[in-house]
Amino acid sequence: MKKVVVAMDFFKGCLSSSEVEKAVEEGIKLVCPDCEVIRFPIADGGEGILTVLVEATRGTYQKIIANDPLMRPIETTYGVSGDKRVAFIEMATVNGLPLLSETERNPMLTTTYGTGELILHAIEQGYREFVIGIGGSATNDAGVGMLQALGARFLNKDGAVLGEGGEILHRIAAIDFSSVHPALEDTRFTIACDVRNPFCGPEGAAHVFARQKGADDAMIEKLDAGMQSFSRLIHSTTGREITHVPGAGAAGGLGGAFLAFLNAELKPGIDLLLQTLKFSEKIKGADLIITGEGRTDRQSLMGKVPSGILEEAKRQGIPVIVVAGSIEDTEILNQAGFQGLFSIIPSPMSLETAMKPEVAKKNICRTVAQIISLVNL
Amino acid sequence: MKKVVVAMDFFKGCLSSSEVEKAVEEGIKLVCPDCEVIRFPIADGGEGILTVLVEATRGTYQKIIANDPLMRPIETTYGVSGDKRVAFIEMATVNGLPLLSETERNPMLTTTYGTGELILHAIEQGYREFVIGIGGSATNDAGVGMLQALGARFLNKDGAVLGEGGEILHRIAAIDFSSVHPALEDTRFTIACDVRNPFCGPEGAAHVFARQKGADDAMIEKLDAGMQSFSRLIHSTTGREITHVPGAGAAGGLGGAFLAFLNAELKPGIDLLLQTLKFSEKIKGADLIITGEGRTDRQSLMGKVPSGILEEAKRQGIPVIVVAGSIEDTEILNQAGFQGLFSIIPSPMSLETAMKPEVAKKNICRTVAQIISLVNL
Repeated sequence: MKKVVVAMDFFKGCLSSSEVEKAVEEGIKLVCPDCEVIRFPIADGGEGILTVLVEATRGTYQKIIANDPLMRPIETTYGVSGDKRVAFIEMATVNGLPLLSETERNPMLTTTYGTGELILHAIEQGYREFVIGIGGSATNDAGVGMLQALGARFLNKDGAVLGEGGEILHRIAAIDFSSVHPALEDTRFTIACDVRNPFCGPEGAAHVFARQKGADDAMIEKLDAGMQSFSRLIHSTTGREITHVPGAGAAGGLGGAFLAFLNAELKPGIDLLLQTLKFSEKIKGADLIITGEGRTDRQSLMGKVPSGILEEAKRQGIPVIVVAGSIEDTEILNQAGFQGLFSIIPSPMSLETAMKPEVAKKNICRTVAQIISLVNL
Repeated sequence: MKKVVVAMDFFKGCLSSSEVEKAVEEGIKLVCPDCEVIRFPIADGGEGILTVLVEATRGTYQKIIANDPLMRPIETTYGVSGDKRVAFIEMATVNGLPLLSETERNPMLTTTYGTGELILHAIEQGYREFVIGIGGSATNDAGVGMLQALGARFLNKDGAVLGEGGEILHRIAAIDFSSVHPALEDTRFTIACDVRNPFCGPEGAAHVFARQKGADDAMIEKLDAGMQSFSRLIHSTTGREITHVPGAGAAGGLGGAFLAFLNAELKPGIDLLLQTLKFSEKIKGADLIITGEGRTDRQSLMGKVPSGILEEAKRQGIPVIVVAGSIEDTEILNQAGFQGLFSIIPSPMSLETAMKPEVAKKNICRTVAQIISLVNL
């Protein structure tokens, strides 16, 4: 064992990606003190992508004031790459669900306006290339708020300008793009997106995600009807049919807005990250890759961190082992190509205990040491 | 991977040794269908040793009526080896704690008489060699009951014959061996014994084990005082000082009685089993040994199944992996020589769920498959 690559997602609600990886490295070094360990702190489209991208490119952060999901100004952050070519935005930092209390959650009212403000600020700083993570949103406004911040106006059938939130969707009769920022023409957006839901319908944004954002049954019906009518309007206005494009339903339809109006490319967050991190180049010659996440199951094969890692590793013939807080569907995952999947849990224990950071760190370190010892055989 | 040895203890309250091993074999075959798997169903001095010994020697069972810990006749069983040379007795089958309800447990009253009856029956059948497992007893009578069944009489200071149970110990003033079975002279006893407690005192039988057999504080004091006085009587009668011999306190002092009066040899159950099973011979050329038990921790190094296995495996340079329901102290266990220790628990879960036989079997199979896949690397 000469070179081991560590590329772990964070353990949600427990440890950051980099904390997880420190514990993994400790476990490796317990058994192989001389082994070279290469760590890639990874996060998928959800929380954490901003930090990973900024750190990977030795970039910097830009603090600004922008509006939260309920149009209250907050201090928030975006990033720019070390070479000053790319702006990095994580929509959750300004319009994420964790910014609202349980009772404030209401996708009829929440807006992606703040996300548009971050884009606008970066455009005004001269940035024409964006990488945007859209996981963890509090919104179901089909990206209307973001477009409003960039200068678009949404009008009802009487020509009156509409306000914010998912509740306006079914009333939009026309879109006025006359005042959008002219630089948008030359701007390229790559969207890190880890869901493949369509814009609307039974598998769409409202039906699948609105409940966790605070919607009840009636709201979900209304939101979906609004998405349906807005999607027809998009088609008649832009000629684009985004309704069934996988990912159009991401972030309450923000994915669809990027596709329809900003010519964006949607990519699995992990692919985007691995590309930014020059993963395929750096893992050359590794004996083993350790990846993992809080919970690994068959879902992990759908564009999540371990599957992105596995794909690249397979190309180079490097075995991949999963270390996770919880594992399921191992047979399917073995068939997909993972050499081994191991839970860090040492004995029957509650989720609460298992998720204590100190407990989890020790469990990770111990499990990895046992794995390395076996591979060394 | 051509030859894998499986030698697992049972998972207490969950799966028998042979059920555990079936699940392990299934896991191995998932990954290596052509691998030769050699299974040794193992049990330590406690429950299960009778079955293991009878099966290992292709022996037979002998059903008899004997007295339970409260002197109630029950149908019970001992075994004889296939070559008809050795009788196998598991004391728990006639005087074990599980034979009593919670409210019946009372080491002042419980007796090892039934164990003596089993020995007597086998002696009368002509057996002169015994292997006896003494784990899991309900008694704290210092083996007095067993000796009574073999013909000994215990007298108080007035010369009156005493009855049964731990309560008589402090009243024993003399022992009358004139009527013991004459064949005992030529009989050899090997005792499978996995505790190393002395006969009496703070680490002795009463203080360490009587509470779980139903004693309260006052009873424990009385029992220990009885053991102290009986141990002095043993010394003055036989010239033997067994008080501090490790294991004399096993099974409520039954270990001491075997030492003092029957010239027995006490051995860790696992050593005895491995010898009977011809373990060292049969594992020759194995690539890997998988052992384990319900719970593995530093205690497992003290004469329990995994440590017995490890000792022999080390001599032959075969790596040993532990698979357990619960693991702790892995660093110490790694240092002792275990190549890897793995819990079968796939995610945070209650002990109750983890101990469901079907759940445990799946977890064992899955964990072993992952391990074999790693070792195959």
